[in-house]
Amino acid sequence: MARSTDEFRLIDNYFKGLTHQSQVAVGIGDDGAIIDSSASTQLVIATDTLVESVHFPASTEAEHIATRALCVNLSDMAAMGAEPKWFTLALTLPAEAAADAWLQGFSRGLAKIANQHNIALIGGDTTAGPLTISITVLGEVPKERGLVRSGAKSGDNIYVSGTLGDGAAALHSIIDKSQTLSPPSSRLIERFYCPQPQIALGIGLRDFASACIDISDGLIADLGHICKASGVSADIYSQQLPIHSELKQQFKQQSLQWATSGGDDYQLCFTVAASKEAEFEAWVATRKLVVTKIGNMGPMAHNQSPVRLDNQTISATSGGYNHFHQKS
Amino acid sequence: MARSTDEFRLIDNYFKGLTHQSQVAVGIGDDGAIIDSSASTQLVIATDTLVESVHFPASTEAEHIATRALCVNLSDMAAMGAEPKWFTLALTLPAEAAADAWLQGFSRGLAKIANQHNIALIGGDTTAGPLTISITVLGEVPKERGLVRSGAKSGDNIYVSGTLGDGAAALHSIIDKSQTLSPPSSRLIERFYCPQPQIALGIGLRDFASACIDISDGLIADLGHICKASGVSADIYSQQLPIHSELKQQFKQQSLQWATSGGDDYQLCFTVAASKEAEFEAWVATRKLVVTKIGNMGPMAHNQSPVRLDNQTISATSGGYNHFHQKS
Repeated sequence: MARSTDEFRLIDNYFKGLTHQSQVAVGIGDDGAIIDSSASTQLVIATDTLVESVHFPASTEAEHIATRALCVNLSDMAAMGAEPKWFTLALTLPAEAAADAWLQGFSRGLAKIANQHNIALIGGDTTAGPLTISITVLGEVPKERGLVRSGAKSGDNIYVSGTLGDGAAALHSIIDKSQTLSPPSSRLIERFYCPQPQIALGIGLRDFASACIDISDGLIADLGHICKASGVSADIYSQQLPIHSELKQQFKQQSLQWATSGGDDYQLCFTVAASKEAEFEAWVATRKLVVTKIGNMGPMAHNQSPVRLDNQTISATSGGYNHFHQKS
Repeated sequence: MARSTDEFRLIDNYFKGLTHQSQVAVGIGDDGAIIDSSASTQLVIATDTLVESVHFPASTEAEHIATRALCVNLSDMAAMGAEPKWFTLALTLPAEAAADAWLQGFSRGLAKIANQHNIALIGGDTTAGPLTISITVLGEVPKERGLVRSGAKSGDNIYVSGTLGDGAAALHSIIDKSQTLSPPSSRLIERFYCPQPQIALGIGLRDFASACIDISDGLIADLGHICKASGVSADIYSQQLPIHSELKQQFKQQSLQWATSGGDDYQLCFTVAASKEAEFEAWVATRKLVVTKIGNMGPMAHNQSPVRLDNQTISATSGGYNHFHQKS
């Protein structure tokens, strides 16, 4: 998943000095790292952690926890244009969770997603403690074909995959203790616990995208990361944002806010040079992929937030999910 | 670190079916996984998690937590004969720990060990939650030169590096609330928080060892893992075990128990064919490495524990640190 603003502060202040060394093509600060593993191939590595009561409610079924944990990690591979191949699992679980039924459900969820993407669990660690799942996924890209955040140029078109706001709608419905919201539909539950990593799209985007990120913190925050890394600004338009009819009908008040700032969507946001637009859209049509053009990049905006919605400046820090404010 | 008995049960029951696929030379169940990354090189990957109040006392300094977390992970690289190169960090920390002083100390500890071994932090994830540090280290070995547990043969000599029992002595002294034990010496504190990963020895052992493991669960438990994976038994002798004079003097009652079953030593235990003994010991002498011959492998012992101490059968399950019994 993409990195939140607080994470960037942590990384910049405390950990960035620790990344150096030959063979590291992309270090800390993107969705994953890229290292040179052979003359023709680079290895892409991404790590994400899910903590009970922070990233999922305490009552979540084990199978759902597992599918979500693996899907959000695979989403980083998609954002890098990598083909995922292997993963390790660091599973910290309290004694009451270390029961057969829980572990069977968890293992079933992992197997479901691992089989869908033909990836292998190659190792890990199980320890006692508060329920925490940390997964490291490893994938491969042909040399120098990985997608990063830093290549967007002024004039590029901005696209997103799928629909936006579903993650936030699902989360809010699931944890809505006052029950003022409709209960989540099976579509939203699926979108929350099995957010389909856009692997095929990411691999195809090696030929088209100038920058790419996955939307975990919200469109404005994550697009802002592309702007910051690329030294550009972005204009997006609310009328162009792909929002599912279910959200527009059931969550009329919130759907635009969730689509722009809600987070947890795990769709890709990427930029394509105008000169490649026709070829890209023809490719998308043949693959039956769902992508939507939502705006375009502009020159760097000095002294203001880099993302404008309907020509209004939007603070990137007002959007974006902050891991240090617990969700439930 | 090596895997405990409970972990093997978890892995066998729930996760072993998830490892498959081409390019995986060694999957779940050894200290690390080995995958084919190029024609001449294999990638070695190991993951370990440290949880507050399970793997270290709640009052531990941030710098100490970081050095220990990275050292125990690097110990897996040593056990595989790998040269460590990169690592990712999944850091889950409570709001009160996310303060400058704590993060500065943690970062300083990571940098100290990373610089010693010339490895680079390439990515990771920071989340809010109970203090948990999960590190994945990646290293390289020349193709098919990695050390595994399964190659020991009857008649091979058994060696260990360094001294045994220090980890347990340190841990017991540090968490000794009744203060019946002497406070830990600076040597023991160093051994606990900076257990020096035996990287140079591991790399050298590519030429000599038939099997190798790092001692995290205790000598008998970890040597038992070699026996199980190799289909052999082991005879070791208490008079030959390398125990530091400090332990023999200050912890006379406990030192043998700690050396055989205490865990947390992060020394290597390995086997060398008798035909290579002279060449190996000559090599050790030139490198000023400290290794001690402690016994020899024998034929598989049916229906009994595979490790004998002074000709007595010892239950492997009586030794070995069980992660599901909290230490503090």
